[in-house]
Amino acid sequence: MTERPDNLPATSAEPLGSTAVAPAGAHEPAPTTPDTPVLQVREGLLEIPGELTLHHGGRLGAVRLAWRIAGPANAPVVATLGGISAHRRVYSTEAPQSGWWHDVAGPGLAFPVERLRVLSFDYLGGSGETTGPRGAAAFPSISSYDQADLLLRLLNHLGIKSLRAIIGASYGGMVALAFGERYPDRVAQLIVVSAADRTHPMSTAWRAVQRRMVRFAIDCGRPQEGLQLARALAMSTYRSPEEFSARFGGTPRAGEHGFVFPVEDYLMARGADYATRYQPDGFLCLSESIDLHRVDAGRIFVPVTAVAVREDQLVPVADMRAMVARLPHAKLQEISSLYGHDAFLKEAEALKPIFAKLSGARE
Amino acid sequence: MTERPDNLPATSAEPLGSTAVAPAGAHEPAPTTPDTPVLQVREGLLEIPGELTLHHGGRLGAVRLAWRIAGPANAPVVATLGGISAHRRVYSTEAPQSGWWHDVAGPGLAFPVERLRVLSFDYLGGSGETTGPRGAAAFPSISSYDQADLLLRLLNHLGIKSLRAIIGASYGGMVALAFGERYPDRVAQLIVVSAADRTHPMSTAWRAVQRRMVRFAIDCGRPQEGLQLARALAMSTYRSPEEFSARFGGTPRAGEHGFVFPVEDYLMARGADYATRYQPDGFLCLSESIDLHRVDAGRIFVPVTAVAVREDQLVPVADMRAMVARLPHAKLQEISSLYGHDAFLKEAEALKPIFAKLSGARE
Repeated sequence: MTERPDNLPATSAEPLGSTAVAPAGAHEPAPTTPDTPVLQVREGLLEIPGELTLHHGGRLGAVRLAWRIAGPANAPVVATLGGISAHRRVYSTEAPQSGWWHDVAGPGLAFPVERLRVLSFDYLGGSGETTGPRGAAAFPSISSYDQADLLLRLLNHLGIKSLRAIIGASYGGMVALAFGERYPDRVAQLIVVSAADRTHPMSTAWRAVQRRMVRFAIDCGRPQEGLQLARALAMSTYRSPEEFSARFGGTPRAGEHGFVFPVEDYLMARGADYATRYQPDGFLCLSESIDLHRVDAGRIFVPVTAVAVREDQLVPVADMRAMVARLPHAKLQEISSLYGHDAFLKEAEALKPIFAKLSGARE
Repeated sequence: MTERPDNLPATSAEPLGSTAVAPAGAHEPAPTTPDTPVLQVREGLLEIPGELTLHHGGRLGAVRLAWRIAGPANAPVVATLGGISAHRRVYSTEAPQSGWWHDVAGPGLAFPVERLRVLSFDYLGGSGETTGPRGAAAFPSISSYDQADLLLRLLNHLGIKSLRAIIGASYGGMVALAFGERYPDRVAQLIVVSAADRTHPMSTAWRAVQRRMVRFAIDCGRPQEGLQLARALAMSTYRSPEEFSARFGGTPRAGEHGFVFPVEDYLMARGADYATRYQPDGFLCLSESIDLHRVDAGRIFVPVTAVAVREDQLVPVADMRAMVARLPHAKLQEISSLYGHDAFLKEAEALKPIFAKLSGARE
């Protein structure tokens, strides 16, 4: 496996090019021993020449893809893809909280960053540095196949012949499945958490209402408030009734309009935070992309480890079982988690054995 | 059991006072035999003197309560209370579709309207003829205890010493429990479908988002659109993932903004219909009242038959079991239904045996 140097301009806060980051942080570099290898972090913007023809028929020109790879030089590469709010920064040793997988991936955590290189990118159509609808009058519908195509271009650009695995959760799991169907020779296995071969109509119902809310708010000239409400609703679907029951059984407080309930304060605070960090039109695009997702499980010949969460309201365990029955080479692991659909962000211990196999000396 | 004539002004489309309605309809009166007794329908507006002090501390003056009673003269009276969208017209032989329980109650249907008198009323704070927030600058928070108090006043007004039962589903079940706790000598038993002694925080989450949506839309000067969106979301919580999976697995259509999904068309159509028939502020008041509901199950000494629906997303079967464990005299019946929380509107066959016991010649 080789890598070409990356000469594209930097667009993120982190410096472009090869940066040695010690596990203990930039200010106090830890000694580099075999046990604490230097983590290389590289970021870049891949400019894609010409025009892309998208899965649902739209076209996009001048697409730029923001990517990041972090890990020990020459370690096997694992593409790691999260939900529609995730981005290229999977983990960071310099600013741990800036990584979307900070509870799971990092030095000493469940995901062995010391033995694998983690590749990721900002999704097409989202709120990150990759091309998205921001400011555009119209933007085409994006498929999980389109994201898979961009990942292929990224592998070609970086000279990565084959990925050790794609770990995809939620929307990332859909992209992993799309990639596995199209490019089986470029990935050895898929680990798919809380994502199926098609979207459940009940979860489409909840997302469709979210999109309607955002569009209504845009139409009223108050887009961020619509995004706040949509995210508040989304948060309730990401977690389990059991968690909410344990956390939010308290009494309501008097508010400006009648009573405000503990769970309401929580959801609105999460929504407000989200609305400061994401774009309404990027949210609309990727939310729709989830609902458009449909792959042919019978044609995915890459081995798949599917992880289903029994408390997941968005991806029912029955849908995961049905997909695994259709996949030619798959095994299913069912776990229980108070965090429901968000389990992949939280359940480090349950996921750890799966990651341990990835970094074994098989290659 | 006696009844006084009602001399209050009519407010509904149906004529006030005693009206003989033949089961087969007004235009073709069926012969009155012992098997097809004449159904008496009476409606009225009860004007409550003075000021009401409400459970949550607010006050309301000049309250008017719109009520309806239908059934054979001198038959036992059953108060029948539905969800926050229900109203005093439980069933109608003249215009069957105008009754909110039209799939369950009516001549020849599961609920034996030939042998019981059905009493109901428009909820305080809703969109019906009973006093509500319509047009008011502010309206107090309403408790299920307040509805129970109004039912007591109605019984006194009509000279009904004791109800054979209260059948309450969803919000109506909460009102039944509140009544049972406060006025055990005025009702022989409660039949409570899909309602517990307290509200689950996950269902509060979904309703809180609905209320925020409506208030946002009011603030934008487009209240009916907010109500449409809120109802669209509510509808998804009333049904089960299994039903949506069976009905809405089809492909999306191209719309003005990207794709529109089958379940989205359904929800928006239901929401649009709702928004033409209900008031945003009435919705806000009763939606909040659900979330404020909390009764002391240990102090409800009236016998309770609780009916729980395993697929109910709003009232988990675990909450119904926990309530039944706290109730001094209760039995639990669990049913399965594709209709989830809406099962009480649809599952006539499952409910029929419970109703049959009610109309037995025990009294």
